[in-house]
Amino acid sequence: MQRVRILGVDPGLRRTGFGVIETDGVRMAYIASGTVAVPTDGPLHARLKVILDSLRKIAADTQPHAAALEKVFVNVNPQSTLLLGQARGAALCALSDSNLDVHEYTALQIKKAVTGTGRAAKNQIQQMVQHLLQLNGAPAPDAADALACAICHAHHAPALDRITQHSAYESLSGAGGVPRLRRGRLSRGR
Amino acid sequence: MQRVRILGVDPGLRRTGFGVIETDGVRMAYIASGTVAVPTDGPLHARLKVILDSLRKIAADTQPHAAALEKVFVNVNPQSTLLLGQARGAALCALSDSNLDVHEYTALQIKKAVTGTGRAAKNQIQQMVQHLLQLNGAPAPDAADALACAICHAHHAPALDRITQHSAYESLSGAGGVPRLRRGRLSRGR
Repeated sequence: MQRVRILGVDPGLRRTGFGVIETDGVRMAYIASGTVAVPTDGPLHARLKVILDSLRKIAADTQPHAAALEKVFVNVNPQSTLLLGQARGAALCALSDSNLDVHEYTALQIKKAVTGTGRAAKNQIQQMVQHLLQLNGAPAPDAADALACAICHAHHAPALDRITQHSAYESLSGAGGVPRLRRGRLSRGR
Repeated sequence: MQRVRILGVDPGLRRTGFGVIETDGVRMAYIASGTVAVPTDGPLHARLKVILDSLRKIAADTQPHAAALEKVFVNVNPQSTLLLGQARGAALCALSDSNLDVHEYTALQIKKAVTGTGRAAKNQIQQMVQHLLQLNGAPAPDAADALACAICHAHHAPALDRITQHSAYESLSGAGGVPRLRRGRLSRGR
């Protein structure tokens, strides 16, 4: 089986997490992760543009073959649902604008893929992501959630078979591919 | 006062209305309007890409100086709110990706600008838009709502003063600028 690079995204209007891994169907390797810090002031369209531009740049820099997101369920607060929806719309636009197929998984699927149980706490996700990808420290919560999405997609082999047609294929052993983003925090301010 | 071209948008995941007008601060002229028919099947990110691509093309073709949208309030159905949020996120991304300033107005402001009252029915909006822009027929509901947003922004002179700095200025008398979109229905997909 060919190696596949996956970009996981955890969209949010304040912080959007991202995480890139590579898998050969057996092993997984960490490529990059971080958090896009979206300015909390300014008009909405400008804030969404930060998500759009940042994720497009991350996709261009890391050259993933596919993207993975968590399926969202509606929030108790309708206003929060609307804001999350808009942030999610911007993230999906960035991914489809980068010609990536987007795969969506439920929170249960993601937690099971990472911790083996559907009832994992936030910090358990971080610890298991750190363990599975052999990182020196736990990623920040949003980056960990994004990496967990990517790991979940890596577990879905039929989906992977389909996306290995991608031309921009890079080998797992080609280390140091994306040093700029490695464990970094991509911050966009005013 | 300089003439300003305004793109109004009424985002929706099934139909996204758009309307372009031009104003010199006193008179208004119709430029183009229509409806982007978003495919009802296919994955969400592909549907959002239709909104993103269509509105970017409309902005590139019609060269507006500013964009106007209706502020949304949350729907009674949380799932609808989430879907609308994502469609709206895609529309806002297209506008900011086209370097347009986006101005948002409440439904009350828009209805007052078009009909003089805050309690206008859907078909009254269509009729008043037809009357104000001297059209031969009433625009479709989504296009009429988008044109109403643009008309509302045209009534807000202080905002206009700020955006007349735009370099791609075209005069109101430069007729026939965008024949392709004039009164047309921009349909994408099945």
